[in-house]
Amino acid sequence: MRILGIDPGYAIVGYGVIEYRSGQYLPVEYGAVTTEAGVEFSRRLAEIYDGMQELLNRLKPEAAAVEKLYFSNNKTTGIGVAEARGVILLALSQAGVPLFEYTPMQVKQAVTGYGKALKPQMQEMTRKLLRLRQVPKPDDTADALALAICHGQAAGSTLRRELLRRGKVPGQVI
Amino acid sequence: MRILGIDPGYAIVGYGVIEYRSGQYLPVEYGAVTTEAGVEFSRRLAEIYDGMQELLNRLKPEAAAVEKLYFSNNKTTGIGVAEARGVILLALSQAGVPLFEYTPMQVKQAVTGYGKALKPQMQEMTRKLLRLRQVPKPDDTADALALAICHGQAAGSTLRRELLRRGKVPGQVI
Repeated sequence: MRILGIDPGYAIVGYGVIEYRSGQYLPVEYGAVTTEAGVEFSRRLAEIYDGMQELLNRLKPEAAAVEKLYFSNNKTTGIGVAEARGVILLALSQAGVPLFEYTPMQVKQAVTGYGKALKPQMQEMTRKLLRLRQVPKPDDTADALALAICHGQAAGSTLRRELLRRGKVPGQVI
Repeated sequence: MRILGIDPGYAIVGYGVIEYRSGQYLPVEYGAVTTEAGVEFSRRLAEIYDGMQELLNRLKPEAAAVEKLYFSNNKTTGIGVAEARGVILLALSQAGVPLFEYTPMQVKQAVTGYGKALKPQMQEMTRKLLRLRQVPKPDDTADALALAICHGQAAGSTLRRELLRRGKVPGQVI
């Protein structure tokens, strides 16, 4: 199963595409769609949309895992991030890619087994699970890969439960 | 000048198109793009995007006035509204329609002359300025028309200042 993880933002949209096969995570491509400060905001949204469409057309993910948003301290930034997230969800919907949302705590739990793991622990586990030499940069890209892993695990256990329910032996998780 | 006012939302996007000519406001078309509760959220965003594109293609506004968002009490609703607003700004940017943002207080000031006017006062003044028989429904549509009037006034005074600066007599405001 090919999964796209996305960490939404308006300056940096982190993305990571992985293949989840037989319980293993293989990196396909990861990086970031970036927009420049000073450019008109609605123009930046259009650049994010174009970048997302390009990624979806080229990499053809079967599912997308996107971080669930909560607003906390910086309310003004929060609005811009939510506006960018809306454009990302639009691109996913138009491409027919099923959307799954996870909280940061769910991602930490899935990747490290501990919902309150710190960022360096998360990044190191992400690096290990994907057999990368270095932690991907920027942080938004590492977060996007962790989201994709989180969905692989969630989808894997759903499939396992489904196979068990049907009385089939859960050998390999595709 | 043809102005599109938009009151963003994900269940109801109020819109109102007016012609601002010789200091007068003429209604062209007003209404709402609506989406149904229970439909997947990213699908609702796609419906808003399609609705916006249809409006922009058909009505060809020269400027758009959109309410500036602030988050207050209901944070969860706020995220959905901002996501919908992102999709609306995207459609405007792709159609090349210049965007102008106004706070509710600026709109109240422009329409009634008083920044803390109450909703019924606002709606009544909007009705009068547009020579409508009744206050447009839903409220989101009335708000969108008020936004368009606010921009007409702001753009009108900018033009008047510009003509004065050039030493031309500010007779008619187009």
